[in-house]
Amino acid sequence: MRLADSFRSERFGAVRIHELQRVIELDSGAVADAGQPGLSTGSRIVGPEALRAVETQLVIVVPCMNETRSVIEGVLSGIPHDCLIVLVSNSDRSPVDRYEIEAQTVEQFCRLAGRSAVTVHQRDPGLAAAFKAAGMEELIDDGLVRRGKGEAMLIGMALAAMTGRRYVGYVDADNYVPGAVHEYCKAYAAGLHIAGSPYSMVRISWHSKPKLRDGRLFFSRRGRSSEVTNEWLNRLLAEYSGFGTEVIATGNAGEHAMSLDLGLKLRLAGGFAVEPYEYVDLFEQFGGVLESNDPEVMMNSVPVVQIETRNPHFHDNKGEEHVQGMRMQALNVVYHSPVTLPAVRQAIIEFMVGQGALEVGQEPQRERVYPPVGSLDLDLLYDGLDAEALSFRQLDGRAAAGLSASPPIDRDSIPQKL
Amino acid sequence: MRLADSFRSERFGAVRIHELQRVIELDSGAVADAGQPGLSTGSRIVGPEALRAVETQLVIVVPCMNETRSVIEGVLSGIPHDCLIVLVSNSDRSPVDRYEIEAQTVEQFCRLAGRSAVTVHQRDPGLAAAFKAAGMEELIDDGLVRRGKGEAMLIGMALAAMTGRRYVGYVDADNYVPGAVHEYCKAYAAGLHIAGSPYSMVRISWHSKPKLRDGRLFFSRRGRSSEVTNEWLNRLLAEYSGFGTEVIATGNAGEHAMSLDLGLKLRLAGGFAVEPYEYVDLFEQFGGVLESNDPEVMMNSVPVVQIETRNPHFHDNKGEEHVQGMRMQALNVVYHSPVTLPAVRQAIIEFMVGQGALEVGQEPQRERVYPPVGSLDLDLLYDGLDAEALSFRQLDGRAAAGLSASPPIDRDSIPQKL
Repeated sequence: MRLADSFRSERFGAVRIHELQRVIELDSGAVADAGQPGLSTGSRIVGPEALRAVETQLVIVVPCMNETRSVIEGVLSGIPHDCLIVLVSNSDRSPVDRYEIEAQTVEQFCRLAGRSAVTVHQRDPGLAAAFKAAGMEELIDDGLVRRGKGEAMLIGMALAAMTGRRYVGYVDADNYVPGAVHEYCKAYAAGLHIAGSPYSMVRISWHSKPKLRDGRLFFSRRGRSSEVTNEWLNRLLAEYSGFGTEVIATGNAGEHAMSLDLGLKLRLAGGFAVEPYEYVDLFEQFGGVLESNDPEVMMNSVPVVQIETRNPHFHDNKGEEHVQGMRMQALNVVYHSPVTLPAVRQAIIEFMVGQGALEVGQEPQRERVYPPVGSLDLDLLYDGLDAEALSFRQLDGRAAAGLSASPPIDRDSIPQKL
Repeated sequence: MRLADSFRSERFGAVRIHELQRVIELDSGAVADAGQPGLSTGSRIVGPEALRAVETQLVIVVPCMNETRSVIEGVLSGIPHDCLIVLVSNSDRSPVDRYEIEAQTVEQFCRLAGRSAVTVHQRDPGLAAAFKAAGMEELIDDGLVRRGKGEAMLIGMALAAMTGRRYVGYVDADNYVPGAVHEYCKAYAAGLHIAGSPYSMVRISWHSKPKLRDGRLFFSRRGRSSEVTNEWLNRLLAEYSGFGTEVIATGNAGEHAMSLDLGLKLRLAGGFAVEPYEYVDLFEQFGGVLESNDPEVMMNSVPVVQIETRNPHFHDNKGEEHVQGMRMQALNVVYHSPVTLPAVRQAIIEFMVGQGALEVGQEPQRERVYPPVGSLDLDLLYDGLDAEALSFRQLDGRAAAGLSASPPIDRDSIPQKL
């Protein structure tokens, strides 16, 4: 993969946010890994060996809710072979058990492709019991893990951590373009390679999003919600530096990846607040404004690599209500962060009142924030899943390909608590 | 890339048409090239080394007509680095010189990506003069190369032959999904690798084609024109074998590739007849019904590998008239082929009359068919292009990347006439 060079970055304590970098070539040929900026091309290559090295350590978590079989199949086909697939489903289980169809789709794919995967249903009572036993009661409401995307991502990260792999990336299941999924995964690998820190994050900004408008397709550059989220995250930064900035272009990025060394330290937010809150939590934990508990991380930097992919992001339209919800959840987390300065907080309130999202005199809602996945006892989590979670499946298609098979998560080699 | 196995093929003389094979994984990992059917997975891998070996010998011809800059940029970004790009444009040159914009887009891309390309305009008088000098006056009307897609493909094949590379593939410029372009090229490489003959062809059937219907997207499985073309090509075969067949699924495939050893022997048809006529010409030249001039080819087989790609084919809608035209051009070439048996010819007439495309008592139109590109004197073609074709550009971005640069077509190493 060839990426345009990123010449600028903004620093916030240990967090180094790199300017958006475009993908120039999806496949940059067999040239040995350069990793360094090109001579005068303004671009750099991450060669196949370097990509492969990350992919063999990368878990791709696919949050899934009521997608059709053929869409899921397409998404799976785009995930590079060396990545491990973890499907976290929040699909309906009646009148038709859609999770069962999804798990069968994954199993069939694994058999055909000779690879392995893990699947689980978010609302499995056994999963909730396992998280409770492992030390995260906050995740549970009424005996079940709460609904919500942040919650699905948290489950996925915990499963990823149990595999012993080093990286986790997220790809939404509602994607009609397998080639886009493929590009996201390659961009994760390229970004994690060039980030050059054990604590790194890669966030995707898609090239465009096709929309139906007046009976034809219009390729919109930015999502409706992204513009608002990015603007306020950038204002948070600018209020400190005194210089306006547009460096953050991926505040709502559903497609993103990170090292588990970083991921296990992050506090994830619930619902759709999860993606913007990752930025906020980076600023809180590693921004140098509040005291950090991690001198080890502060000594390193925490690079955030932002990549603009080439493919259009072509997915189901969830409607206006969904978008308005996402927008406000992002503002809620920026508002309530202790690193957000008073002038920005005041401006957020004015904006939200102007949008009709807040009554005069009200405060923005607080979003739910969970403890870091690194605080979980993974051995207990595994034991709970294994014993009680009926939806928990470890699929291994490698035996069908004549390879020696072993489950992706092995009780004896679960990494110890941080 | 991992493909489902093709267990069946139909034979017509030396031509061996393989059943459609699905792409299972876009990236099948670093496993050394297997090339053989998997143990019990029902699939086979073509590994990165094998793909690369074909790509370094592959010319990708992009026929282009009035596409926007950003669509062309996307298509280029999807073509693997090791492939050589040839853009053949039939775009408007006034009031705005769109070819100039296209050539600049290609040049800028080549500089950023450190790669090379060739571009030419189909209606350049110097190009027509060069083809005339090289021995193909049939291509010219009124001092210019005729308009039409077959003509653009013929120009592209001649340029490909001059580079000395071994394979040529076609990718239409009106494709909104760079990841689909990437998959087509990988599928060409995989198919040419597994074909296992110096005379081989790979044809793509896309997974689906999104269409606007009642304000939402519908993923249609087959094009309107493909169904008709495939049906009649299959009837041509079935009339000989006495067994109905659906083996041909790619009669209209715009996305296809072949070895130049085969391509230089083919007679290409003009306009949109070009793609179905490739099948017809294979049957005429190598079907064993008519006498063949090529005992060498007849001793080998001529495999046609058909691959169903994963990505939706997402392009501009050219409207119903275009489709009806394509459909009838395909029927014209099947009708007029000396290998088509009388019963099929009669049925074609009845079908066309029923469709209102023919009056009772009329004969289907004859499509223009050109001599093989292998009959051209490539040295004379080059000299003509070099001296007179102002639109002919050889772009080399490798110098910008610090690599030693040489033009893609080198006068001293043009392969000799067949």
